[in-house]
Amino acid sequence: MEQSHFSPAHDDSVVLDFARNISRNFSPIWLACIPAAAIITVVWSTAAMAQDSAVDAAGQVQIILDTIFLLIASILVIFMNAGFGMLEAGFCRQKNAVNILSKNLIVFAVATIAYWAVGYAFMYGEGNTFIGLKGFFFSGSSVPYSGEEWYTMDGETQILNFVPESVSFLFQVAFAATAATIVSGAVAERIKFDAFLIFSFLLVAISYPITGHWQWDGEWLYAFGFHDFAGSTIVHSVGGWAALVGAAILGPRAGKYRDGKTNAIPGHNMSIATLGCLILWIGWFGFNPGSQLAADQAVPYIAVTTNLAAAAGGCTATLTSWLKDGKPDLSMIINGILAGLVGITAGCDSVSIFSAVIIGAIAGVIVVFSVAFFDAIKIDDPVGATSVHLVCGMWGTFAVGLFKMDTGLLTSGNPQQLIAQIVGILSIGGFTVAFSFIAWYAIAAVLGGIRVHQDEELRGLDISEHGMEAYSGFVKESDVIFSSSASSDSEG
Amino acid sequence: MEQSHFSPAHDDSVVLDFARNISRNFSPIWLACIPAAAIITVVWSTAAMAQDSAVDAAGQVQIILDTIFLLIASILVIFMNAGFGMLEAGFCRQKNAVNILSKNLIVFAVATIAYWAVGYAFMYGEGNTFIGLKGFFFSGSSVPYSGEEWYTMDGETQILNFVPESVSFLFQVAFAATAATIVSGAVAERIKFDAFLIFSFLLVAISYPITGHWQWDGEWLYAFGFHDFAGSTIVHSVGGWAALVGAAILGPRAGKYRDGKTNAIPGHNMSIATLGCLILWIGWFGFNPGSQLAADQAVPYIAVTTNLAAAAGGCTATLTSWLKDGKPDLSMIINGILAGLVGITAGCDSVSIFSAVIIGAIAGVIVVFSVAFFDAIKIDDPVGATSVHLVCGMWGTFAVGLFKMDTGLLTSGNPQQLIAQIVGILSIGGFTVAFSFIAWYAIAAVLGGIRVHQDEELRGLDISEHGMEAYSGFVKESDVIFSSSASSDSEG
Amino acid sequence: MEQSHFSPAHDDSVVLDFARNISRNFSPIWLACIPAAAIITVVWSTAAMAQDSAVDAAGQVQIILDTIFLLIASILVIFMNAGFGMLEAGFCRQKNAVNILSKNLIVFAVATIAYWAVGYAFMYGEGNTFIGLKGFFFSGSSVPYSGEEWYTMDGETQILNFVPESVSFLFQVAFAATAATIVSGAVAERIKFDAFLIFSFLLVAISYPITGHWQWDGEWLYAFGFHDFAGSTIVHSVGGWAALVGAAILGPRAGKYRDGKTNAIPGHNMSIATLGCLILWIGWFGFNPGSQLAADQAVPYIAVTTNLAAAAGGCTATLTSWLKDGKPDLSMIINGILAGLVGITAGCDSVSIFSAVIIGAIAGVIVVFSVAFFDAIKIDDPVGATSVHLVCGMWGTFAVGLFKMDTGLLTSGNPQQLIAQIVGILSIGGFTVAFSFIAWYAIAAVLGGIRVHQDEELRGLDISEHGMEAYSGFVKESDVIFSSSASSDSEG
Repeated sequence: MEQSHFSPAHDDSVVLDFARNISRNFSPIWLACIPAAAIITVVWSTAAMAQDSAVDAAGQVQIILDTIFLLIASILVIFMNAGFGMLEAGFCRQKNAVNILSKNLIVFAVATIAYWAVGYAFMYGEGNTFIGLKGFFFSGSSVPYSGEEWYTMDGETQILNFVPESVSFLFQVAFAATAATIVSGAVAERIKFDAFLIFSFLLVAISYPITGHWQWDGEWLYAFGFHDFAGSTIVHSVGGWAALVGAAILGPRAGKYRDGKTNAIPGHNMSIATLGCLILWIGWFGFNPGSQLAADQAVPYIAVTTNLAAAAGGCTATLTSWLKDGKPDLSMIINGILAGLVGITAGCDSVSIFSAVIIGAIAGVIVVFSVAFFDAIKIDDPVGATSVHLVCGMWGTFAVGLFKMDTGLLTSGNPQQLIAQIVGILSIGGFTVAFSFIAWYAIAAVLGGIRVHQDEELRGLDISEHGMEAYSGFVKESDVIFSSSASSDSEG
Repeated sequence: MEQSHFSPAHDDSVVLDFARNISRNFSPIWLACIPAAAIITVVWSTAAMAQDSAVDAAGQVQIILDTIFLLIASILVIFMNAGFGMLEAGFCRQKNAVNILSKNLIVFAVATIAYWAVGYAFMYGEGNTFIGLKGFFFSGSSVPYSGEEWYTMDGETQILNFVPESVSFLFQVAFAATAATIVSGAVAERIKFDAFLIFSFLLVAISYPITGHWQWDGEWLYAFGFHDFAGSTIVHSVGGWAALVGAAILGPRAGKYRDGKTNAIPGHNMSIATLGCLILWIGWFGFNPGSQLAADQAVPYIAVTTNLAAAAGGCTATLTSWLKDGKPDLSMIINGILAGLVGITAGCDSVSIFSAVIIGAIAGVIVVFSVAFFDAIKIDDPVGATSVHLVCGMWGTFAVGLFKMDTGLLTSGNPQQLIAQIVGILSIGGFTVAFSFIAWYAIAAVLGGIRVHQDEELRGLDISEHGMEAYSGFVKESDVIFSSSASSDSEG
Repeated sequence: MEQSHFSPAHDDSVVLDFARNISRNFSPIWLACIPAAAIITVVWSTAAMAQDSAVDAAGQVQIILDTIFLLIASILVIFMNAGFGMLEAGFCRQKNAVNILSKNLIVFAVATIAYWAVGYAFMYGEGNTFIGLKGFFFSGSSVPYSGEEWYTMDGETQILNFVPESVSFLFQVAFAATAATIVSGAVAERIKFDAFLIFSFLLVAISYPITGHWQWDGEWLYAFGFHDFAGSTIVHSVGGWAALVGAAILGPRAGKYRDGKTNAIPGHNMSIATLGCLILWIGWFGFNPGSQLAADQAVPYIAVTTNLAAAAGGCTATLTSWLKDGKPDLSMIINGILAGLVGITAGCDSVSIFSAVIIGAIAGVIVVFSVAFFDAIKIDDPVGATSVHLVCGMWGTFAVGLFKMDTGLLTSGNPQQLIAQIVGILSIGGFTVAFSFIAWYAIAAVLGGIRVHQDEELRGLDISEHGMEAYSGFVKESDVIFSSSASSDSEG
């Protein structure tokens, strides 16, 4: 029904004419009844139209509210790029800070272009159950489920039946970029800048959209009953798998594992790392509640489960590292909070408040031991991205199979949800690992390796890859050790 | 009225049958009137129902809008943790940065758990006028004034008559954490990490909820006419009193007051301190406007008074410190802005635009002299938290009694509001001071003191309490002074 | 129509009485028709009233939604102060960091007061086509187009026909401050603190409002057909022109151009500079979409063009600097993103998605060469503010004349829009340049120059202007070079 075409004056005169004509030809009794019946009909249709157009009016406002909410959620998720950037830069050495900051900044730009050009079409375009195939170079109206035609430049307006696709696109762009950003942390301090950019482009353009299509475009995995509300698996473990493969292929940083023991390589700026964690915390209020894709009453519930899981993860990771190593380690507080956030992401909409606390608390314990585990198998992940995003992403997805309110194993006794979760974890993980191996090796073949030269690594990537340093004017330990005022930097 | 149960078709046929039956038994004149009367009745009820359900539809959207607004306000307030963290870390020495960052990060996690477990029930649960006693371990639906039942997992929906309680809970969690965070700054650089965590837990779990209950759950203090819109007293002075008691018990940092004079101990990172101030500034747009608890026309007015008071406080503090000390001190610009924000918090909804500027301007002057005052009485508050939150919190609460549009002493000539304000300041202050003394001494008894050993303080809390340093790889002055490349740090 | 005055019960009885009186005096046939006609009239008016009041209800919610959206946009724009502050501080030397941070913090406070006192009245008050003249010291209700009367303190409410003026005021304050902040970067590291504050006050109080009035208050430039949606010219190039004039009058920093070549003076903290860029990126989602001034379906479209232009600018600037200088320069990635954002600001609402990518991509190339150009003509702009805001602001405004969907030269073949754009660029630029020359020289006359003494510049403005340093406790290169532990700093 089009609101602007509703004209009471017109219908009014027609009905009155009809009533008057009838009244001349029939007996009074019927004359009393016929117009009455006619009137009643008119009344109902009028009232119904009044009601419909009024509901339409409220419905239009609701759609705009959905739109604005989704825009704000997108902005919060985009802000997560600042969080990841500060976290990763802070956790690494100052001699590589410019390189890390450059990666984390440009990766969102590259991801935006990659997802605009092809990723969005592969993920949400019409196609088959494996991949979407329409909507390349998103133009604002060329793709399905669009309300974009509402927005016309010639002043005409039409009814808005759906949230404009542009905001869905923006929200999905922000999500896609997250997957690429996660990779950055695990391969930091030794990867070539161009190798990382190419891999990011491929991940966001091809791999992430394909596995995302299976679930979030309602295809085979969704049909199988897999539940991953905001992407513990679809976003975080995808980034985590790609990161793990990259870190494994690259090998550890020089000096990390020497003489059979693991050397801690401390980060250079815990202030910005902590800031990064807090930015990610608030960014997650866009990530999880925004995944509801509508402004409704479930949104704050999701925010509460998200917040409690983060708090629980932070507390248990602090306690675990305190008990395990004798001191509360700031990097473990940070990673515990992130572990709780990643862990609750899959089930934030569908587990109880208590379950959310439990899921977050367990994630906080897992992440401490996971970091130790990866060091034990000599996979060097400078910021713990694999432990946070892959391991806790898998845990969170698995936990849905245990705690989901209506179908979890522990809440319903039925293992079907848990089986679907495992299928989702394995299928998406398997595809991403295979894709990542091929992509990393293909890039290595084209560029002649993906790792910087050993001299460059020792000197720091900032000078070799970017010709500048991050903290000009400050004296670094490496300057003193080498008895030189050059800005090269050793292990420091 | 339940929208989904409204069925025009059903009522239609009943009325038609009624009209036809009547028409067989009465004279034409009455026959013309009776159905007419019946129709009119139907028309009115139909129209009224159409209108009601339409208003319902708009009302539902309004409730969702309230919800989303309150969620966004909560996110902004949670972001204030980043602001406090950066501000406090920046204002202190680099040798204690990890400790300060750890405190400011974990305190929000601890506060979330504490308020979830007990604080919320003490503050907003049913109980008596002194304390609430229901709703421990908030589960999303077990506490009063809830619309949470709307959100059911089995697909059924009911009318949403209230903003879902989950978002109210989240907003209150964010507020409660603020009180604890304020304490952190005043006790920085010498408190034991575990002592601070335990005190934060107790403050958020017990003290803050009880005094908050008196006013914001509509109990005795509210009935007395006290007005503290967003918490100049209930949040900021509560944090400030607890901070003052803690700082007084701890004593000053080593070297702060020596040979009868006050030694400035400069902060290590003014960049992040300034960032922290700006984050707090925007966070306050969640803190004050969000306290309206609804999206309405008063919200932007509150934002404007808040912004003008902050600006005025920044300007007057800059001028005051310029005139007083000969140079515009950045830490005073920062604290002046925060003073203006704390000062307007109590009355941001109910003073004129001009009054807001005056309140903020006076707060900016007060904070400069207050910092000097606390140094004069040898209470060492590294970041000026007591001056900003306690002194300006009291000023702002008092100012409501002067400037409140309808009841202020200066606007109405009636001193009653001012008396209520003083009663609020004293009663909440008295309770918080008593609680804080007991809590700090109890913690000291359990832990064998709340202050770190003097050696640890000199070396910095980062190494002794956390086993790491914040800025690895940089040469600090203490390294040079001790002719050593170890990362210990002296007075910094 | 006032919702609260609508009373169905009252009208009901009147109509029934009327029908009954009529029925006693006329023949049955007419008796059947007259009440029918009366009823129909009542029905229509009732239904129309029901519909109107329902649409009113939805309309009220829409106005509140507009209000909340505009508040959030304002907060994001205000957050840009943190972005500019971190960017500028990071791009400059640590010896001037306190000064830069102080400028960037206090400038928003000063701008708020200046715009509140006079700027808003000059820009949006009633007056003539050159300047507004009413509404000084915005009081929340004394200025036109206000819905502020809705908000009354005595409990009465009226219908809200417009977004409350308070939120429009807040949004405009945030915009006005941006223009002043832009200046800060170009004059950094050598300007006197008080000179900058006075200039900022004058720019925000007088110059920016006058040129803004011409367009955004619908005056002569608007009537001419100029299109500058969110202020590529009105905000960014205004700030840029004022910055250029200031930088030209000040002259370059000591040592910047020596012996005929340009010496790079590296920034001291690329971490906070990168953070600043990302804060600005998300701040722009308030700047551009918020300029729609309403929550509608165009908002997310604007967000998408904004985001794509930023991404494109970042990518092309990275590639350009990589090709030009052999390495991907982080400061160029940052400035490329900002260039794309400034470039799309004028046309973000009215160019196609593809055009947005092109506009951003070209801006990213322009900014790299523009930075080189200003160095070639020996205008020293430490952060590239002139290249980003002035040059790309002009490009973006010009690009509207090329790409605007319905009227651009390339899309319609008609040069009229392009001519209007050029007129806008020249008229606003001309006024701002003239005003800036007069203002800077007047300030110089009053203060005895606007540049700090050469000794102070060498030592750093932090010590001379503020008596403190930004990074106490760290050893700087200047300390080592001078063989001293004093915190003075040379070129480093």
